[in-house]
Amino acid sequence: MGVTLGELAAKFGCELHGAADQVITRVGTLSGAGPDAITFLANPAYRMQLAGTRAAAVILEERNRSDCPVASLVHPRPYLIYARIASSLYPPPVPRPGVHVTAVLASGARVAPTAEIGAHVVIGEGVTIGAGAVIGAGSVLGDGVSIGASTRLGPRVVVFERVRIGARCILHSGSIVGADGFGFAPDAGTWQKIPQVGSVVVGDDVEIGANTTIDRGAIEDTIIEEGVKLDNLVQIAHNVRLGAHTVIAAMAGVAGSTKVGERCMIAGGVIIMNSLNICDDVMFTFGSVVTKSVDEPGKYSGQLPAELSSRWQKNVARFRQLDSLADRVSAAERAVAQLQDQKKND
Amino acid sequence: MGVTLGELAAKFGCELHGAADQVITRVGTLSGAGPDAITFLANPAYRMQLAGTRAAAVILEERNRSDCPVASLVHPRPYLIYARIASSLYPPPVPRPGVHVTAVLASGARVAPTAEIGAHVVIGEGVTIGAGAVIGAGSVLGDGVSIGASTRLGPRVVVFERVRIGARCILHSGSIVGADGFGFAPDAGTWQKIPQVGSVVVGDDVEIGANTTIDRGAIEDTIIEEGVKLDNLVQIAHNVRLGAHTVIAAMAGVAGSTKVGERCMIAGGVIIMNSLNICDDVMFTFGSVVTKSVDEPGKYSGQLPAELSSRWQKNVARFRQLDSLADRVSAAERAVAQLQDQKKND
Amino acid sequence: MGVTLGELAAKFGCELHGAADQVITRVGTLSGAGPDAITFLANPAYRMQLAGTRAAAVILEERNRSDCPVASLVHPRPYLIYARIASSLYPPPVPRPGVHVTAVLASGARVAPTAEIGAHVVIGEGVTIGAGAVIGAGSVLGDGVSIGASTRLGPRVVVFERVRIGARCILHSGSIVGADGFGFAPDAGTWQKIPQVGSVVVGDDVEIGANTTIDRGAIEDTIIEEGVKLDNLVQIAHNVRLGAHTVIAAMAGVAGSTKVGERCMIAGGVIIMNSLNICDDVMFTFGSVVTKSVDEPGKYSGQLPAELSSRWQKNVARFRQLDSLADRVSAAERAVAQLQDQKKND
Repeated sequence: MGVTLGELAAKFGCELHGAADQVITRVGTLSGAGPDAITFLANPAYRMQLAGTRAAAVILEERNRSDCPVASLVHPRPYLIYARIASSLYPPPVPRPGVHVTAVLASGARVAPTAEIGAHVVIGEGVTIGAGAVIGAGSVLGDGVSIGASTRLGPRVVVFERVRIGARCILHSGSIVGADGFGFAPDAGTWQKIPQVGSVVVGDDVEIGANTTIDRGAIEDTIIEEGVKLDNLVQIAHNVRLGAHTVIAAMAGVAGSTKVGERCMIAGGVIIMNSLNICDDVMFTFGSVVTKSVDEPGKYSGQLPAELSSRWQKNVARFRQLDSLADRVSAAERAVAQLQDQKKND
Repeated sequence: MGVTLGELAAKFGCELHGAADQVITRVGTLSGAGPDAITFLANPAYRMQLAGTRAAAVILEERNRSDCPVASLVHPRPYLIYARIASSLYPPPVPRPGVHVTAVLASGARVAPTAEIGAHVVIGEGVTIGAGAVIGAGSVLGDGVSIGASTRLGPRVVVFERVRIGARCILHSGSIVGADGFGFAPDAGTWQKIPQVGSVVVGDDVEIGANTTIDRGAIEDTIIEEGVKLDNLVQIAHNVRLGAHTVIAAMAGVAGSTKVGERCMIAGGVIIMNSLNICDDVMFTFGSVVTKSVDEPGKYSGQLPAELSSRWQKNVARFRQLDSLADRVSAAERAVAQLQDQKKND
Repeated sequence: MGVTLGELAAKFGCELHGAADQVITRVGTLSGAGPDAITFLANPAYRMQLAGTRAAAVILEERNRSDCPVASLVHPRPYLIYARIASSLYPPPVPRPGVHVTAVLASGARVAPTAEIGAHVVIGEGVTIGAGAVIGAGSVLGDGVSIGASTRLGPRVVVFERVRIGARCILHSGSIVGADGFGFAPDAGTWQKIPQVGSVVVGDDVEIGANTTIDRGAIEDTIIEEGVKLDNLVQIAHNVRLGAHTVIAAMAGVAGSTKVGERCMIAGGVIIMNSLNICDDVMFTFGSVVTKSVDEPGKYSGQLPAELSSRWQKNVARFRQLDSLADRVSAAERAVAQLQDQKKND
């Protein structure tokens, strides 16, 4: 337990200023870290906290070093280095290989000997679970599911039949992958269910948040490419494709058959309509509603910021008359032009 | 396994063009279907894929038949016929009657002999489960719950005490029916909980999406009428009534005591405020916020479409000054009118 | 079973008008209550139902008493008194002390003898469960979790390692407390996960809705202060602090590191951005998107109300030209001013 600053500097390619034999056992915030903790300065908003830190060491950029009252690990990308150091100090728990006595395995399930199957797990026929995978307590895997090596399912995850999950993924508690997409044909005032016979394919290194839902495809598969990160309570509808390394924050949703490119960043509460194409490298800000395809990388917005209701209501009332206001402006412009013409002719 | 085109044409009332003895074993998309698959053309956006299809047959309207390079099943409503054919090719799995050895049943539970009770299910006192019903692994049913015949609960569904679910319903994984409504009375800066003593009544042929929540009524019941379809992550608050055959897409919510009529279509992310009345046959588009009752059928919207942030910010800044802009227009109009008057008097 | 009106009047400090020995066994609505039920009138919208009520008694304000056709309990705050009387008539079920035979307890778990541990529960090492607590069926508690006295977890709740829950809390079914926050550092087009090493601290008398998620802190803890009430499908991100007695309705979310003050009221579907400070006593109305800190108590709004799409589309089209419309108004104003000047000089 613990590593020295010298070891960290060497392992993560930083320039060390301070005692190489200082032992680090934990991480902390700039303002809260104690003398055995390492912290970082990445966001300029926290720069004023640097002078007062009591951390053992701070990961920071060269330009901030002179203001650091304690040891420092200098690197041009302190946030990334912090992430790597924290990952080394707090590795995920080592799987405890074996199948809990209360788990229920159907015939033909192939579980790697190094995988951990938790209490009350239910595993269907023909399931494959890779080396070092962890299936959290109470999870349910349908027939024919495959779980890649070193993938971790939290407690109470459900993965439906034939869904394929890659390696090194994290499926957080309560997430549901492969339930039916929402498809119905109208039938004389009622709805005829359309069987959802596709599946879901999840690439490597994907993270899926708590209580997030990803539906199986109607005919072909819903695709989550490698490196995608989904936050909590996200909805991914049937036949969506999410490009590699795209991130989606909490409470955002992507409707059916929409394709989202690679490295997109979708903020919390964003709703993306069905059957759109969003190109690579697009960012949508908080709460936007996306109604059209986007074919140009960049930052897109669609939310009006909340303000005092008294003021808001006045502007809303005007908004609801905006079309006629615009007509009035046109009329005024014509009248002015006419007056100007008359003036000229005077 | 498999059915001939001739059988399908006869059973579903289509006009067959092609070999009646062609065997169909699966469904596919226009572009992806292979020679043993049937597909359909309903959305004109996919019409251009028709010429290249390698499917065994396409379900389509008469007007598209001449462009179809393979066999066709002609019907004026191809999407509905597709839904019916797919349902016949992919029936839900047949229940495996019996109670799993790990399930926990309280005294007095009446489970039909043809029902399937999955692993680790917990069933309360006096529960009634109808013929052919399926209770997915890890589901929990409170005391006095009744589940209608042929209704299917996915894994990890929770149905609270006294809730009544109709026949032929589908409750997807993670859905929760009958948890407490959100009711508190203010009490000197704190909140006094109001017991939620009503229940939930769900009609026949209702589908409830993954991780969707439907709260029990405060005093009387929350009502979900027959044929309602709810997508994932939908919230239905206490004392809501949803009229028959209304559909609600993912991440939409209906707040307390609001009544929604029959055959309404509520798109993803819509928020409907409390204590409203929405009449029959209303459609709300993606992301709308509904703040007033609606007494006229039709299509309603409330979302601003996202656009490039640079452009968006300019319009938002103007929106925040909209009330004063409107005042300026009025002032300009008065000034113009005065100038026009003066002109006339010149 | 049952209590007299005289007992209720004495216990809850009301003035009784009517027979003191009338027995009350249940609550009802003004319109639906029968002759053994008590009801209340608090919202003026229901006043017209008073004359027709068949309840045994109505809790109401003095000013409404003369219109009440049955017995009444008079109090200046009828809704609060209703909440208290209903709570006394419908107490939560008494815990059935003991650990269900199917529950799985790790070594070192300390469960109070009066606590109830449901079927298929999984409890980690070193967990502490207080007197009279109830852990619903299928719930999972990670290592080192502590649950306060008289706290109730519904079925299938997950509480992660080291999370501390106060006394008299209610965690509804499907809620997840302490899953990883959403934190990643960009790394050459991919994302490096940042270990979430903080925890969650939940105060006393907190209620957490069905399928709601509260993430653990990145370094320090996420804090939910006493008396907070969260509805269903709410997302609380890492390092958020919610002040005492704040209420958040369904489908609202608070992004990372945002601090919300005490006694705030956040309506359904509200999205609050990250790293903001919201002061005490702030109300946000349905569907608002909050993009800036708020340092003044009051009511804030940000949603445009849905209207007929035909009308809406016209206003949206104008909104998208709003910046240029404002420029045109400025130009017209200048032209008018020039004409007025010329007029003066004529």
